[in-house]
Amino acid sequence: MRPMTKPRTRVELYYWPTIQGRGEFIRLLLEEANADYVDVARTRGGMSAMMRYLEGKMPGALPFAAPFVKVGGTVVSQTATVLAFLAPRFRLVPRAEALRAEASQIQLTIADFVGEIHDAHHPIAGSLYYEDQKKEAKRRARIFVQERVPRYLGWLEDVLEDNRSGWLVGKRLTYVDLSAFQVIAGLRYAFPNAMARAGRKIPRLTGLHDRVAARPRIAAYLRSKRRIPFNQQGIFRHYPELDPR
Amino acid sequence: MRPMTKPRTRVELYYWPTIQGRGEFIRLLLEEANADYVDVARTRGGMSAMMRYLEGKMPGALPFAAPFVKVGGTVVSQTATVLAFLAPRFRLVPRAEALRAEASQIQLTIADFVGEIHDAHHPIAGSLYYEDQKKEAKRRARIFVQERVPRYLGWLEDVLEDNRSGWLVGKRLTYVDLSAFQVIAGLRYAFPNAMARAGRKIPRLTGLHDRVAARPRIAAYLRSKRRIPFNQQGIFRHYPELDPR
Repeated sequence: MRPMTKPRTRVELYYWPTIQGRGEFIRLLLEEANADYVDVARTRGGMSAMMRYLEGKMPGALPFAAPFVKVGGTVVSQTATVLAFLAPRFRLVPRAEALRAEASQIQLTIADFVGEIHDAHHPIAGSLYYEDQKKEAKRRARIFVQERVPRYLGWLEDVLEDNRSGWLVGKRLTYVDLSAFQVIAGLRYAFPNAMARAGRKIPRLTGLHDRVAARPRIAAYLRSKRRIPFNQQGIFRHYPELDPR
Repeated sequence: MRPMTKPRTRVELYYWPTIQGRGEFIRLLLEEANADYVDVARTRGGMSAMMRYLEGKMPGALPFAAPFVKVGGTVVSQTATVLAFLAPRFRLVPRAEALRAEASQIQLTIADFVGEIHDAHHPIAGSLYYEDQKKEAKRRARIFVQERVPRYLGWLEDVLEDNRSGWLVGKRLTYVDLSAFQVIAGLRYAFPNAMARAGRKIPRLTGLHDRVAARPRIAAYLRSKRRIPFNQQGIFRHYPELDPR
């Protein structure tokens, strides 16, 4: 059984306070780990604190963007880097170098998928409104749903089939499984029709999603106010015109 | 002085044989390290060997895509994961955990930049020809050149200014500096007009590019036939209509 690891040092998470976004992958790790953490930008004065880091006014490595964390004196940004940095502290990744590399490559592939999910509704620029790139979004989303969703989900299903433990890496749950859960949950919100079609071909991944959702700490988190609902400002957005039957 | 490290085990690199692409970031590391490596897909029968891995017919972690490497019995994919896996073997990253995390976050930010560079000419789908998404590419590239190129390059310049050693992380050259060199070289090929404008504002990054290019092993590599020239099939493509004066 995994020991109830409590970190010596509180983790400060910095991320936009009104969306799940990329920060959610880190929130899920911290919740599963029962970590002592604070979601800084959701506290009073926290947004200004976050902006000071992003504007380069604070010590430590300069983040390009949120999310980032501060642990002791170390500032770490880029979602996958943050996860790989935190996971060993909470035993959410195996020790062996080859398995850590495998977790990293799966996480980066999930990150690529997340980038494509975002660009399905913002194919021209993140700085433009959806309404100002809707025509291009329809064209991109059609191919994304036909080609990319089955390709990424099929690959994750193959990894699960190869690994045989029911988890993506090694013999126990890792941070990568939490991220895979989040992608499935988000895609079901954003592309319910596409996921109804894809779901039949990914029984192992669907099972993984359900087992993560049922873990006591994750289940409690999903019921709590700490879990921001999916909405139309995040990465996963439901635009019916991008998800035809 | 850095010792001439020779790895115990030959590195097999698998990547498309006719482009620099994402494989080039790994080639640069292996060249600077004077590593014993083989660029498998450029050897006889190598393409079939690569395809067997991508089709899941070989042991080891399943790559989602090339590039990937095989070192001993370990298969590692995703460019940034490969670099982080190889760099300690060749002393191309510091030992300290915080500095390794910093290198990783810079590399992932470069990876995001490279993704946006690719999507400037392929905003709708990687599976469509450029000519079939040229209109959308013009719209995306205009904003990319105005907003994103200065943002990414400005951030790298800020990191160099903070670090003071002339390198992006720690006191010596790391794999991240090699990647930054490659991005500058590629952007100069693809967007010469935009880079002529941006160049004045990034003196430190320009200096880093020049110092990397002048390193004896990199200089020899760039002169050799092992360096595939930039071309119109890779990530960095020069379409004059996407790079107005």
